[in-house]
Amino acid sequence: MTTATLASLVNHQVRLAARPVGLPTAQNWQFTEEAVAEPADGEVLVQVLALSLDPAMRGWMNEGKSYIPPVELGAVMRAGGIGRVIASRNPAFTVGDVVSGTPGVQDYWRVSAEGAQRGGLVKIDLRLGTVTQWLNVLGMPGMTGYFGLMDVGQPKAGETVLVSGAAGAVGQTVGQLAKVKGCRVVGIAGGQAKCDWVVKELGFDACIDYKARAPEGVQRWDAVREGLKQHCPKGVDIYFDNVGGDILDAALARINRKARIVICGAISQYNNTGAMQGPKNYMSLLVNRARMEGMVVFDYADRYHLAVAEMAGYLKDGRMKSKEDVVEGGVRAFPDTLLKLFNGENFGKLVLKLAD
Amino acid sequence: MTTATLASLVNHQVRLAARPVGLPTAQNWQFTEEAVAEPADGEVLVQVLALSLDPAMRGWMNEGKSYIPPVELGAVMRAGGIGRVIASRNPAFTVGDVVSGTPGVQDYWRVSAEGAQRGGLVKIDLRLGTVTQWLNVLGMPGMTGYFGLMDVGQPKAGETVLVSGAAGAVGQTVGQLAKVKGCRVVGIAGGQAKCDWVVKELGFDACIDYKARAPEGVQRWDAVREGLKQHCPKGVDIYFDNVGGDILDAALARINRKARIVICGAISQYNNTGAMQGPKNYMSLLVNRARMEGMVVFDYADRYHLAVAEMAGYLKDGRMKSKEDVVEGGVRAFPDTLLKLFNGENFGKLVLKLAD
Repeated sequence: MTTATLASLVNHQVRLAARPVGLPTAQNWQFTEEAVAEPADGEVLVQVLALSLDPAMRGWMNEGKSYIPPVELGAVMRAGGIGRVIASRNPAFTVGDVVSGTPGVQDYWRVSAEGAQRGGLVKIDLRLGTVTQWLNVLGMPGMTGYFGLMDVGQPKAGETVLVSGAAGAVGQTVGQLAKVKGCRVVGIAGGQAKCDWVVKELGFDACIDYKARAPEGVQRWDAVREGLKQHCPKGVDIYFDNVGGDILDAALARINRKARIVICGAISQYNNTGAMQGPKNYMSLLVNRARMEGMVVFDYADRYHLAVAEMAGYLKDGRMKSKEDVVEGGVRAFPDTLLKLFNGENFGKLVLKLAD
Repeated sequence: MTTATLASLVNHQVRLAARPVGLPTAQNWQFTEEAVAEPADGEVLVQVLALSLDPAMRGWMNEGKSYIPPVELGAVMRAGGIGRVIASRNPAFTVGDVVSGTPGVQDYWRVSAEGAQRGGLVKIDLRLGTVTQWLNVLGMPGMTGYFGLMDVGQPKAGETVLVSGAAGAVGQTVGQLAKVKGCRVVGIAGGQAKCDWVVKELGFDACIDYKARAPEGVQRWDAVREGLKQHCPKGVDIYFDNVGGDILDAALARINRKARIVICGAISQYNNTGAMQGPKNYMSLLVNRARMEGMVVFDYADRYHLAVAEMAGYLKDGRMKSKEDVVEGGVRAFPDTLLKLFNGENFGKLVLKLAD
């Protein structure tokens, strides 16, 4: 792309204007526009094709120490995504390369020489999967599900694997992969449509709808516990937790000896304005000699390529499916689209598509 | 002992009369007396010398599934202890043998042929330690501390080990053993006397008094967190939890990457009449890729002899001390003595001595 053409491009951005209390609102965001500058020596200019919308984003908006620093006030909101190189002064990248990285919520991403060098920009192979699959099963959620299940959960054939957020990006990977590994797989999801999809399309053995209307006189969480008894008759060996809260407690009440609970997220708690709800049933860990362990996907970066190769094979031979919920509408659609994650509306990996 | 002499003995017993709500009261106990019968073929008759009083007893009084069945209503209260064989029709045991087992709260224990065979009765060697040491560092609390620290915690020299209930039976073992293994050891205990003893007598590097009066305008748990910052400047690698509740939350806020939290007990919660207090800060496990794991000492029974041999060596060479809080007064003193565990009064391993 020539310098003259670049100069005609406008970069639309979404910046963090204020830290949210509870659910993010319009007040937390600022829309900005910038000209697109020509890359300097060593730099790469990427047009963003699609962004990954993840529950973890809510945590990045908070102040304070976590596994990565918070997004600074006034900065472009952090987001993983896929893009196409449209200009490059870095010998490792040429125009037309499709790349994965953390562009943020904007149309164009100028990657510094340093950023491109340190592995912040990775070429991806569209023969292994589509752009949206590269944000899903072959992307961060897929890697999270893969290493969370395989390294932390350590499934053995014949064991029962329970996964919450079963229809979400991480949940679908975990459940399908556990089926490939010979486990009985039970999901927990909100709504009959998600549960049906997880069982009929993805091949889970069962799925418990935590939003289902409980029978007259029965509390909702008692109904979930009843569902766990019914669908996990031999107990739970691995519980992969994406949600926290009451579902974590229900799972703790059903674990087996030496069970592994993978703590991947706690979406039910992210927008709490009060205190986090800790797992009241954690002493089940003692009774059952079980463990609860946290994981952060970045720790496994040097093995992503192995997981991608394995799962691309399952996508090809049909043992795994990758479902995305693709929203269009440019970066301005970001704030509303993000909320779909927290009201339980999205179904499959949530992707904001910015360009073809 | 002759049959005629046996017939003159009276066995005083304490039985569970009703399941407690909150702290046990007089209503929960029944005192009974029985004649002492001559052992039948294969049986062993043991005079109980000393009983171990443990926080776990409170759990055994509850109904419902746990790691061992509850004490049945009307049954002699379960208790571990040390005794002397006074009559035997089992070739494996002779009069005068000192044995360890689970006699229950009574003066005389008739061990069935089956019970004596299945490892329920184990001869102990008083050259390795005294009767009360065999209930402490060389007994269940010592084994719990040993395997909880070594197998679940997996300490490495130079790491920081934090232990709550530091002056208790398990805590003193954990802390002293961690010192032997080259760790920095910080305790948490209630009261200046316990803290002083833990540091000056047992050699802990520091001990935080969670009951200390906080400075004007500072909340108690904030003071504990401040103490953790001060005494664990490099964070916490292993937290050995005997107490649960707010102290567990304070520890979670201070753990390092790949920390191990050993869940051994939750004495702060055992007499709760409401819901258990779950660890609100459990997402620190995710941020720090840490794990929280439960343990039950019985799982390590086939390795007790190795731990006893190792720790008896430390007792001999002075690297470990064993402090017991010995109460006399017969089985009738049991109900009140048990309460000392829950009001923080006891100091060292709580033992009820029944005979010399």
